Amino acid sequence: MAQGRVLVVAATHGNERNAPWLLEQWRQRPELLAAAGVELALELGNPEALAANRRYIDRDLNRSFAPELLADPSRQELEVQRARQLLARFGPDGDQPCSVALDLHSTTSAMGNSLVVYGRRPADLALAAGVQARLGLPVYLHEADAAQTGFLVERWPAGLVIEVGPVPQGLLSASICRQTQLALEACLAVLAQARAGRLRLPEALWVHRHAGSVDLPRHGDGRPAAAVHPLRQHRDWRPLTPGDPLFWSADGTVIAYEPGANPAARWPVFINEAAYGEKGIALSLCQRERWGCELGWGDALAAL
Amino acid sequence: MAQGRVLVVAATHGNERNAPWLLEQWRQRPELLAAAGVELALELGNPEALAANRRYIDRDLNRSFAPELLADPSRQELEVQRARQLLARFGPDGDQPCSVALDLHSTTSAMGNSLVVYGRRPADLALAAGVQARLGLPVYLHEADAAQTGFLVERWPAGLVIEVGPVPQGLLSASICRQTQLALEACLAVLAQARAGRLRLPEALWVHRHAGSVDLPRHGDGRPAAAVHPLRQHRDWRPLTPGDPLFWSADGTVIAYEPGANPAARWPVFINEAAYGEKGIALSLCQRERWGCELGWGDALAAL
Repeated sequence: MAQGRVLVVAATHGNERNAPWLLEQWRQRPELLAAAGVELALELGNPEALAANRRYIDRDLNRSFAPELLADPSRQELEVQRARQLLARFGPDGDQPCSVALDLHSTTSAMGNSLVVYGRRPADLALAAGVQARLGLPVYLHEADAAQTGFLVERWPAGLVIEVGPVPQGLLSASICRQTQLALEACLAVLAQARAGRLRLPEALWVHRHAGSVDLPRHGDGRPAAAVHPLRQHRDWRPLTPGDPLFWSADGTVIAYEPGANPAARWPVFINEAAYGEKGIALSLCQRERWGCELGWGDALAAL
Repeated sequence: MAQGRVLVVAATHGNERNAPWLLEQWRQRPELLAAAGVELALELGNPEALAANRRYIDRDLNRSFAPELLADPSRQELEVQRARQLLARFGPDGDQPCSVALDLHSTTSAMGNSLVVYGRRPADLALAAGVQARLGLPVYLHEADAAQTGFLVERWPAGLVIEVGPVPQGLLSASICRQTQLALEACLAVLAQARAGRLRLPEALWVHRHAGSVDLPRHGDGRPAAAVHPLRQHRDWRPLTPGDPLFWSADGTVIAYEPGANPAARWPVFINEAAYGEKGIALSLCQRERWGCELGWGDALAAL
């Protein structure tokens, strides 16, 4: 077929173990992922980190795809090398070129079954809108955050992250696997529909657009002075109201949510994601927006 | 005071981060843990593993207290050395002797707020019964498992584990902290009552007595062939009935629970604990028993 293959990546983070387990099952029994008839390349993102049950070895692979980083010959961390290798093999100009990348993640946050889209590429928006119409999944639109760049899917013509939680790191969970499979099947079905000229996008796509992140209160030496308040834990996607309890100290002190410069940015996501402590993120805040779907989106996806 | 100090240990496992965070708060503000008036020694079990955010460096510290292991000069793993050091400092014959050890743990399993008791030492049973009467916590009684030995608290005259979950590894959770603090306060209050001659034990102690463990179905090379069934996830302490779904394969196949040699051992605990994969434990099974409290239990605790 003329249309490009789809790269399905698992274990971009080595301690997110559900997608790589699924990938192993799909390799043994390809019929489990064959319904849409899309040609796939199934690949482990970071096999070394998976073997070590760690998010990464030298640096976060999913922050290692920035063009300037990839082009810098002095950067030889394991994950930078792996990013180059993945692109050389499966990139749009690679040996086994893929036109779409679907990157399977899990999180300790109660994100449910959700999609993460980076920026506003029409094909990505078509894919997200199509899946949202099928399954109702919430969409976290990540853009314009200088502190968070170099995501894997950005280096392919189209792609998104399937993000499922809550699940502890290092743990196999049947429910997380089933949700991952469901979202991936929906992505492939939407893509197949687009390629067949049969994709009907919904009227609108609801996105939660990233506005910024909030860190835990910390002591001068960096140690947390408080934790996420129990009433916030597992309340991803539920909007905050000024005065809502946000953080909790061991002596019972409560720190309440106060709106920042953009009071519309009150939908929290990635609340208490274990891997984000080191990034100084206790939660991110989004603005919820309704975007009318454009005809061109579906055309962009169909062309891939 | 003539009576011994109580050793409170956090971060026996370095990726269980709630207790060590609490311990830091207690060190800064000792009044947060002073209600019972018991003299305490607050200690990090495995600071190296905590710094690395790993369960352990060389071997599980909470399986490193077997007397034959401690006595073997050829064993120099970091955790064996640390076990010797903890005993030399805080052991019953140490520099700063403690008579009771309370070891604070968390788990990815939905154990809630619970106690783990090792064997049937009267003082441990008094402590557990007193806390159960106050808070209703379930008690997992671990004994006679040749595959699991060398627990920290066994080397002190009395002691138990406070086990709280579910919480991912590496994550700070206010709710887990609050439960940990509550259970610890109850332990100290019961001990103080016993020492003051005012402890009234309940009529009976309910225990979930360890009978054995069940591993995931695995392929010949050790990789999991199935995951814990979604209907079992987070159902710790809920008894199994023959035919209940137990494991789930990616192709939808369900493996049902079938009673083993001891059909009374049908209360599951530590369902899908992330750290137990390497131990070949998907869950453990217990027999639920009602033990009449004996007068001597309280006397044994009061003497410490």
